[in-house]
Amino acid sequence: MSSVLQKLISPLASSPAEPPRNKVTVVGVGQVGMACAVSILLRDLCDELALVDVMEDRLKGEMMDLQHGSLFLKTSKIVADKGQDPLRGDCQLSSGEERQCLQVHHPPDHQIQPQLHTHRVDVLTYVTWKLSGLPKHRVIGSGTNLDSARFRYMMAERLGIHASSFNGWVLGEHGDTSVPVWSGANVAGVNLQKLNPDIGTDADKEQWKATHKAVVDSAYEVIKLKGYTNWAIGLSVADLTESIVKNMSRVHPVSTMVKDMYGIGEEVFLSLPCVLNNTGVSSVINMTLTDAEVGQLKKSADTLWGIQKDLKDI
Amino acid sequence: MSSVLQKLISPLASSPAEPPRNKVTVVGVGQVGMACAVSILLRDLCDELALVDVMEDRLKGEMMDLQHGSLFLKTSKIVADKGQDPLRGDCQLSSGEERQCLQVHHPPDHQIQPQLHTHRVDVLTYVTWKLSGLPKHRVIGSGTNLDSARFRYMMAERLGIHASSFNGWVLGEHGDTSVPVWSGANVAGVNLQKLNPDIGTDADKEQWKATHKAVVDSAYEVIKLKGYTNWAIGLSVADLTESIVKNMSRVHPVSTMVKDMYGIGEEVFLSLPCVLNNTGVSSVINMTLTDAEVGQLKKSADTLWGIQKDLKDI
Amino acid sequence: MSSVLQKLISPLASSPAEPPRNKVTVVGVGQVGMACAVSILLRDLCDELALVDVMEDRLKGEMMDLQHGSLFLKTSKIVADKGQDPLRGDCQLSSGEERQCLQVHHPPDHQIQPQLHTHRVDVLTYVTWKLSGLPKHRVIGSGTNLDSARFRYMMAERLGIHASSFNGWVLGEHGDTSVPVWSGANVAGVNLQKLNPDIGTDADKEQWKATHKAVVDSAYEVIKLKGYTNWAIGLSVADLTESIVKNMSRVHPVSTMVKDMYGIGEEVFLSLPCVLNNTGVSSVINMTLTDAEVGQLKKSADTLWGIQKDLKDI
Amino acid sequence: MSSVLQKLISPLASSPAEPPRNKVTVVGVGQVGMACAVSILLRDLCDELALVDVMEDRLKGEMMDLQHGSLFLKTSKIVADKGQDPLRGDCQLSSGEERQCLQVHHPPDHQIQPQLHTHRVDVLTYVTWKLSGLPKHRVIGSGTNLDSARFRYMMAERLGIHASSFNGWVLGEHGDTSVPVWSGANVAGVNLQKLNPDIGTDADKEQWKATHKAVVDSAYEVIKLKGYTNWAIGLSVADLTESIVKNMSRVHPVSTMVKDMYGIGEEVFLSLPCVLNNTGVSSVINMTLTDAEVGQLKKSADTLWGIQKDLKDI
Repeated sequence: MSSVLQKLISPLASSPAEPPRNKVTVVGVGQVGMACAVSILLRDLCDELALVDVMEDRLKGEMMDLQHGSLFLKTSKIVADKGQDPLRGDCQLSSGEERQCLQVHHPPDHQIQPQLHTHRVDVLTYVTWKLSGLPKHRVIGSGTNLDSARFRYMMAERLGIHASSFNGWVLGEHGDTSVPVWSGANVAGVNLQKLNPDIGTDADKEQWKATHKAVVDSAYEVIKLKGYTNWAIGLSVADLTESIVKNMSRVHPVSTMVKDMYGIGEEVFLSLPCVLNNTGVSSVINMTLTDAEVGQLKKSADTLWGIQKDLKDI
Repeated sequence: MSSVLQKLISPLASSPAEPPRNKVTVVGVGQVGMACAVSILLRDLCDELALVDVMEDRLKGEMMDLQHGSLFLKTSKIVADKGQDPLRGDCQLSSGEERQCLQVHHPPDHQIQPQLHTHRVDVLTYVTWKLSGLPKHRVIGSGTNLDSARFRYMMAERLGIHASSFNGWVLGEHGDTSVPVWSGANVAGVNLQKLNPDIGTDADKEQWKATHKAVVDSAYEVIKLKGYTNWAIGLSVADLTESIVKNMSRVHPVSTMVKDMYGIGEEVFLSLPCVLNNTGVSSVINMTLTDAEVGQLKKSADTLWGIQKDLKDI
Repeated sequence: MSSVLQKLISPLASSPAEPPRNKVTVVGVGQVGMACAVSILLRDLCDELALVDVMEDRLKGEMMDLQHGSLFLKTSKIVADKGQDPLRGDCQLSSGEERQCLQVHHPPDHQIQPQLHTHRVDVLTYVTWKLSGLPKHRVIGSGTNLDSARFRYMMAERLGIHASSFNGWVLGEHGDTSVPVWSGANVAGVNLQKLNPDIGTDADKEQWKATHKAVVDSAYEVIKLKGYTNWAIGLSVADLTESIVKNMSRVHPVSTMVKDMYGIGEEVFLSLPCVLNNTGVSSVINMTLTDAEVGQLKKSADTLWGIQKDLKDI
Repeated sequence: MSSVLQKLISPLASSPAEPPRNKVTVVGVGQVGMACAVSILLRDLCDELALVDVMEDRLKGEMMDLQHGSLFLKTSKIVADKGQDPLRGDCQLSSGEERQCLQVHHPPDHQIQPQLHTHRVDVLTYVTWKLSGLPKHRVIGSGTNLDSARFRYMMAERLGIHASSFNGWVLGEHGDTSVPVWSGANVAGVNLQKLNPDIGTDADKEQWKATHKAVVDSAYEVIKLKGYTNWAIGLSVADLTESIVKNMSRVHPVSTMVKDMYGIGEEVFLSLPCVLNNTGVSSVINMTLTDAEVGQLKKSADTLWGIQKDLKDI
């Protein structure tokens, strides 16, 4: 006797199912990884989502929980793959044989790289690049993408406008030593430095510099308050993913290999405005930086290289 | 000397800012509340999101983390309000003076209701209704909306189709005693019971009943694996919110006051297919249930009333 | 001296740009084609949209007009290709070397097929299949997808619910002889025929049959009122496109090759509920039809074959 | 005997249905009006859409065609209202008693204003303001919003990036005499004028000025090629609508009452960067313009006033 399935449905296609066109793999199902995953799902950015982690139980639980929401999602396939992905980026995008690798954040992986006692995303992007053997334009660190999003939100709040209408860029190393490019900050093309030549400096009576300090401090504050940060980084990663998956060529502040730029001589990753499309970083915007700003970039590069040069076997 | 703000922007509107048109308040910033919040934000369902909780630190941390993602969101205002909301639903929707209250899940609130040792959403919806003084059509329990979503996903997986193309309803009490309405289960209007008259019963050789058992078990399994469930419930709440906020009159299986339906004599909340729009539950679909199915509903009603009748001071 | 472009942007990727992952080609830039195009763009379904037509001026004009809206779109590439596409479907989807072909409607193309004096989409889907040499599961006619959408809207309106909550299917030939499957019409699994056994027949005192008649008539009425129909067909094509592009396996009523189904012996295309994913029509739902309903399908098949058998050189 | 409706559905809510929270009225169902309508629908921006026109047949046809797509839309109510709306803006937004009026384009209405032989949107916005009696911040002309979108697309194309990553503003009067603000044009805050001080002038060897000329010419070219423009203006109006409906406070170049700005003494409407939220134009960004640019604005103001001063009975 035939089953319900046999009675209900007759196959028509003789050819095998095709592979997914836009597969995104999220490596690590902690709070950050899952915020990335759910942001990518809710933005309808892929037709297959894969979760990867070494923690089998949590991995399966997260996969099941997302699958149970399938009725409300356009992504038809959500899978999990236990184990260590050879490609280390937290968020990987593939179509056919091409892969991009987006390194989001900072869990040092002691199994693969025992001596890597750092949470610096720019170092980890370098490590990912070296381990993966991918060309440099295919390995991207989320870098100051989140710092910039926070900066734009806080500046915009102070001005009473939406974050997307404040054009401001925070570059360099993600975190404490990030560099806000005051010279380019503008609303509708109106340069804020023209309105207040001291903006961003200690001499500024309005103390706009405090906003960048608040950006740096806010990560620590959120961690102190709730134990970790996840939503903003998840949303920002989905935004980067969209530019890559949809081949948009939008410009984002992300971490890229900056050797031979701004006089930097070593292989380090720092954030610059990058054009992202389905090739990865297709090109980089050349900033018109002040000497002081270039100095800050170089200093970050030196710090990063100081860490990287001692990493063996990469 | 005028400030950057004064130089940059001149007010035009003389009238004060208008109130938000679609404000959603999420009460409770645990894993479930935050999954609801982020699903509602990523679905662009409100112009103001408010978080409410008694845990000040966590509340502020979650608010800041969401605000830092503003660049990637259409919701321009995200606020937090410490303290006990007098209206207890986990998700509240307001426009002008009208409010709906959507009771999602199960944190017993010992401060307000010390004797309420239950996690049953249907009882909590009753409590919310009584405490709020709202008319019955404005208090909605998420009920079997999630059970139905899981059922549709699992049945659809077994048939090789998308969850949205399998029409199946799980009704009654959320959780272990929920009732899958096998008599109505269909794909493209093709009734599965016609293809297999034993479907859903012990006599069924294909054991489709196991799928409903898997639905019931899956909540426990996810909790065992990852400690809690949040994504699917968050996505399902966003879906309910959309029907209400956009005045869509879609039919959802949610918990509503069922007194005088199916011979139920007490004021209990159970899930039935409800038409949801901006008035809340505008109407209820009358199911053509078997005697056994009606019996199951009545039994759930008795159990719930057994709990509710001892609740004092509500 | 270097240009603004050279000064502003430095290439990073050494590899050539990758091909689009989801390219959709719309053949024909009349009112229907453009409604399809704009629906697909606004639903963010492709990373490249190509327009094809023999009318060079109109083609270029439509391409430019869409391109000018790029700021508001996620699709980064909109191109036009003059001339006769060898693959005749109005909407084509490609990824790599695989192509699906979705035949939407009815402009008889006298250049390619001078004797083809018909507007019947089911015949044109057959012609497209024959001319293209594609396997049958890759050639899809929009068929009764629109008829079903109209039926669901009109039935839902009469019941005071959203179209998506009324499950009803119109099958067979698109247009006047389409077949509403009253036996499967349901809301939340509640079969309308159970509530009114005469529903859809002449004996029905409530005259629900009039709703199907209104569906058939409404196409003529809209054409009489505004000269053509375009928005609903455009939206419905975008919905089919989404199932294919996102590999969703949703079930839609579309025109597929029905030889050897329901006793039909000839190669004709008629609408049945089909599972659509990135292989095209992966499978077909077997309806439990009455003898009368099967008779209607066979009659349509005979009519179509009567037209097709005289088509030469296909 | 009770009807299918009575058997199927029981009302629960005792209160009457609530009014829509976000109603958008599109006045005029020509190609532009309908492109606005379908863009607003596909962007899910309202819960009720009303079409208004004096051409009864076309109006009803367009309403029906959109309604037939309801299955694919989140907007649950689409209505039509024959006749002359007293408030003349092409796109009106209402919530409760508050109304904004967005004047899009140019059909001179000889019935209301026989002597108004102009297609200039800036004049028509003035006329709408005068006739409506609304405060100035509630009457908005689409102005150079489209010119700016075209400019950003064309500049971005030349640079190989997405339109949204090129920050450029075209202000003043919509059309031939619009003013591209070269001094503020930037990518990631990098000012193009710094890279090429002659940019936008006749002295520029790269002839970037040609891009603005192409913007002006493109409207004529599209009209010559396809008879009218509609998609880009429709998409741009949906974008403005989103900022208003979602209370976003994004900055857009739209036409606002500029008396007393830049030394303009008369009541004319010209485009400046405006902060749009649910109050309408809440504030205006003060541009740092060159004397030449201010001169161009004043000249446009004079031209417009030359037309307006002869309008009687407004």
